[in-house]
Amino acid sequence: MTATEAEQAAMHRALALADTVRGHTSPNPAVGAVVLAPDGTLAGEGATAPAGGAHAEVAALAAAGDAARGGTAVVTLEPCAHTGRTGPCTEALVAAGITRVVYAVDDPNPEAAGGATVLRERGIDVVAGVEEHAAASGALRPWLHATRTGRPFVTWKYAATLDGRVAAADWSARWISSAASREDAHALRAVVDAIVVGSGTVLTDDPQLTVRGGDQIPALRQPLRVVLDRRHRIPDDARVLDDAAETLVLDTAVPRFALKALHDRGVRQVLLEGGPTLAGAFVEARCVDEVIVYLAPTLLGAGPAALGDAGIGTLAEAAALDIESVSRIGDDIKVVARPRWAEQAMED
Amino acid sequence: MTATEAEQAAMHRALALADTVRGHTSPNPAVGAVVLAPDGTLAGEGATAPAGGAHAEVAALAAAGDAARGGTAVVTLEPCAHTGRTGPCTEALVAAGITRVVYAVDDPNPEAAGGATVLRERGIDVVAGVEEHAAASGALRPWLHATRTGRPFVTWKYAATLDGRVAAADWSARWISSAASREDAHALRAVVDAIVVGSGTVLTDDPQLTVRGGDQIPALRQPLRVVLDRRHRIPDDARVLDDAAETLVLDTAVPRFALKALHDRGVRQVLLEGGPTLAGAFVEARCVDEVIVYLAPTLLGAGPAALGDAGIGTLAEAAALDIESVSRIGDDIKVVARPRWAEQAMED
Ligand SMILES: NC(=O)c1ccc[n+]([C@@H]2O[C@H](COP(=O)([O-])OP(=O)(O)OC[C@H]3O[C@@H](n4cnc5c(N)ncnc54)[C@H](OP(=O)(O)O)[C@@H]3O)[C@@H](O)[C@H]2O)c1
Ligand SMILES: NC(=O)c1ccc[n+]([C@@H]2O[C@H](COP(=O)([O-])OP(=O)(O)OC[C@H]3O[C@@H](n4cnc5c(N)ncnc54)[C@H](OP(=O)(O)O)[C@@H]3O)[C@@H](O)[C@H]2O)c1
Repeated sequence: MTATEAEQAAMHRALALADTVRGHTSPNPAVGAVVLAPDGTLAGEGATAPAGGAHAEVAALAAAGDAARGGTAVVTLEPCAHTGRTGPCTEALVAAGITRVVYAVDDPNPEAAGGATVLRERGIDVVAGVEEHAAASGALRPWLHATRTGRPFVTWKYAATLDGRVAAADWSARWISSAASREDAHALRAVVDAIVVGSGTVLTDDPQLTVRGGDQIPALRQPLRVVLDRRHRIPDDARVLDDAAETLVLDTAVPRFALKALHDRGVRQVLLEGGPTLAGAFVEARCVDEVIVYLAPTLLGAGPAALGDAGIGTLAEAAALDIESVSRIGDDIKVVARPRWAEQAMED
Repeated sequence: MTATEAEQAAMHRALALADTVRGHTSPNPAVGAVVLAPDGTLAGEGATAPAGGAHAEVAALAAAGDAARGGTAVVTLEPCAHTGRTGPCTEALVAAGITRVVYAVDDPNPEAAGGATVLRERGIDVVAGVEEHAAASGALRPWLHATRTGRPFVTWKYAATLDGRVAAADWSARWISSAASREDAHALRAVVDAIVVGSGTVLTDDPQLTVRGGDQIPALRQPLRVVLDRRHRIPDDARVLDDAAETLVLDTAVPRFALKALHDRGVRQVLLEGGPTLAGAFVEARCVDEVIVYLAPTLLGAGPAALGDAGIGTLAEAAALDIESVSRIGDDIKVVARPRWAEQAMED
């Protein structure tokens, strides 16, 4: 059974809906859903509400009301069959009179999985795998990763000069990259659950680590700020400790322990913002799942390199990446890459 | 007066002809020329012969023979009016009965300039500036630069990891970049007059510094190999001293002196192939006119950074570049950039 053209179009809409709630749903996945009436017209749409709120299907069903009866639900993730903070979506779909469900990605969560089976048992047509790749590599990615590995998805982001320096000889790092890159980086902050830095960055740059960036990026919510500071070196008046957002100071220096602690708090996506020492520890621990680099068109010839010691001694041991995209942003070059080990972890 | 469509097309052909002799004409410029018969059809074409040989116009006139009479010469550079190793091209054009000359770039060489004036005095129609930018930023660029500044055009080329390392912690640098990038770099060698490295690179990598790269790149001629080795550290059995090409070992450590010595030998384009120490000295001396970087999709976290000390202490002093192009090559990213100071030097 394959999806109709109207269902394909509805899936694209559902993917777009999921994108609008990225970073606001953890520990739940960012899902989008569209309900089509029996005649194929749009009856209702929805996306995951902030944690504890309605799942996307339930929101879309609510919007559709009676028009859902005999209709089709198009969802980016397999509807759940378990009772979490909300009831199972399979029941809600049945109760609303939905007769066909089209979804993109199977739920890898052992507790929630089996939704498709339950629906089929209730006599509902089920089509799986529609736009699976787009969904899995989009808004669902961090949550899928966290579900499979037990730790949050980690994006390591840095801004460097073309010669790979993240600060000058005097450790000044403001501003290496252009205003356009900084705005892009703020938009990144807006879709993660937590921002992680080392004590070194706090001591040198005293960053506030909040989402800013003007009208384009409404700061609905601030991500958790996390400082890895095992020796309690950061001062009480550090800006990261102000009340603009919540802050967690961890006294572990082991990336996996830190990520476990964050996962336990519901964090599913982490933005690692430096500096090179901490990045080296995360790379060495293979706790980086995505690398986003802003390369400025400048040369320094001195200052800290982007990545500190990661336990790599020879070229043969170099960490291999796959480049996902290379683009121009303002005066800079933006590179998005994935460590090969991240692919392997996903395939395991 | 503007060029006709046929003349425009002939100029594109002349630019392509000039490209075929890049790197083989120094100290003369790489020029292309096309002669059109009075009816606008192609009568002959040519490009600068190796140093001491015919200029492009003379080659094109020879190919055209009698068909040149009453015709048009289309040339990428203003025809010279002076007697160098060959006679003035203006005379050759007059003698061949050319009645119209279309060219791209004015000759900035005070000795050779004035060709357009001489031609006009002899009753010939002259159109200047056709495809001027394409010509000036293409095959003519190194020669124009050398003519204006008195030193060769310097392209600094390096291969680095995404985190900006040009070698691993054990200083191994083979191979940082992909086979495709290395082939591209060999093609670069084929169009320069000299390749410059520091003693450090010879001692660590023992490179041969010749043009190789298979059938695609015929090694008509090997560029001069130059080692900056003021302390006479490189061993007698270094591969750079083999007889595969000529080698010059300079005992100066001052980039401008080294470049002056090369200019005096007829070198108009230099490929600076590292390492980071020498690159730092060249950047500090503002003796880099173009930067070509191959960024491999790997991380090292240790090893020498692409650029060593260039006397830059703070971000505000960073050397600013203009990115000319960003492309994918094999698994790598290729960036071509120009230091802002190079623009300024050209405008002076
Ligand atoms: N351009 C950029 O994108 C960017 C981003 C961030 C920072 N920077 C620059 O980077 C420089 C700061 O570099 P940095 O390396 O000192 O900053 P850092 O990596 O943020 O902090 C390093 C410190 O973190 C602590 N730490 C916590 N967990 C660790 C672990 N697992 N392994 C090692 N250390 C751990 C260590 O302090 P304790 O030993 O006390 O625990 C260590 O000294 C500044 O110049 C800053 O401007 C640039
Ligand atoms: N990935 C790449 O593209 C690439 C390219 C080249 C090299 N490398 C790597 O770079 C490393 C070698 O680095 P390196 O920096 O030692 O090589 P280098 O820059 O080629 O050589 C440095 C040496 O050049 C001499 N020198 C000559 N003129 C100088 C000047 N004006 N200023 C300073 N030094 C001058 C100095 O020796 P004296 O004091 O004895 O004169 C200095 O020690 C190796 O690991 C190599 O594999 C990588």
